[in-house]
Amino acid sequence: MEIYFITHNSSKFEEASELANNFSLTMNWKNIEYEEPQGDTLEIIAEKSCIKILEKDLTLANLVFFLEDAGLFIDSLNRFPGPYSSYVYKTIGNDGILKLMENKENRTAFFKSVIAFYANNEIKLYKGITKGKITDSKQGHDGFGFDPIFKPSECDETFAEMTLTTKNLYSHRQKSLRELFTSLTAFA
Amino acid sequence: MEIYFITHNSSKFEEASELANNFSLTMNWKNIEYEEPQGDTLEIIAEKSCIKILEKDLTLANLVFFLEDAGLFIDSLNRFPGPYSSYVYKTIGNDGILKLMENKENRTAFFKSVIAFYANNEIKLYKGITKGKITDSKQGHDGFGFDPIFKPSECDETFAEMTLTTKNLYSHRQKSLRELFTSLTAFA
Repeated sequence: MEIYFITHNSSKFEEASELANNFSLTMNWKNIEYEEPQGDTLEIIAEKSCIKILEKDLTLANLVFFLEDAGLFIDSLNRFPGPYSSYVYKTIGNDGILKLMENKENRTAFFKSVIAFYANNEIKLYKGITKGKITDSKQGHDGFGFDPIFKPSECDETFAEMTLTTKNLYSHRQKSLRELFTSLTAFA
Repeated sequence: MEIYFITHNSSKFEEASELANNFSLTMNWKNIEYEEPQGDTLEIIAEKSCIKILEKDLTLANLVFFLEDAGLFIDSLNRFPGPYSSYVYKTIGNDGILKLMENKENRTAFFKSVIAFYANNEIKLYKGITKGKITDSKQGHDGFGFDPIFKPSECDETFAEMTLTTKNLYSHRQKSLRELFTSLTAFA
């Protein structure tokens, strides 16, 4: 089965394709930039994005593909930046989040990933959540986005301090991908 | 001519209807809550919202109506929160913005309002901008949203310290409304 990952983010594709190999799946990258529909939840955004892409390019309806949306939800900030994580990252960045978190005792947060998978005229959602804490300062240079300020529970390193292989043991995206790949290979 | 202002925000309606009276226009309030489409600019969001509402309720096509979208753009934060102002207000609020602005020398910002006006199968946009500064602390209890932390240029008070009448002399929304009302009465 040919599976396409629709994303504009090469790091996301890299993360996903490494895991796909473990499942003996071959993944293809479709670098389509699409305008994300707005929504109060990642689930709504992912599903709507899927529908939007199908409407835009009718040839996709014959393919098997998925896209993914993720966000960082910080408890003491009313779960900001949540579904708007990429916009918030582009504007105020990690420094902005750290500033907002100054003197906050409760530093718990979670990353959530939602995959919308399309095959045979049907969309299915797969989810992954990783709980952790916002650090006091940026740590590490790997990964992307909010990785340098997020330390998963029971880890001593932020996502940005880990090798890709280590990050893949904990990452929210790996959890949603694992759910997807497991369900795909279960019927193979 | 019967004009409808489609908004979920009673304060916005109040601001607008006071000005409409000065133009001898009667405004009606349609309290429709609609899901805002995402977009990189207020212009795109306002126009798309208009189309979305028309698609949702076909009877609106026979009416004359407008809706408005506004945002606060802070120069030293890469124009954050911009088109996502209402979400950012709901999560981190004025305290969050003040935190992000701590020790920032450049405190310039502007409020922008974009109106999408629909009549006779056509959508027209009207805009208003008010330049000013982000204050060091919240001041005043009137208005709504980011009003307590925004002081228009050449004013000694924030929007939240002004009476509605005074605010209307400076507000971005009043400027876009004034543009709209002027064009409507020019042909009356």
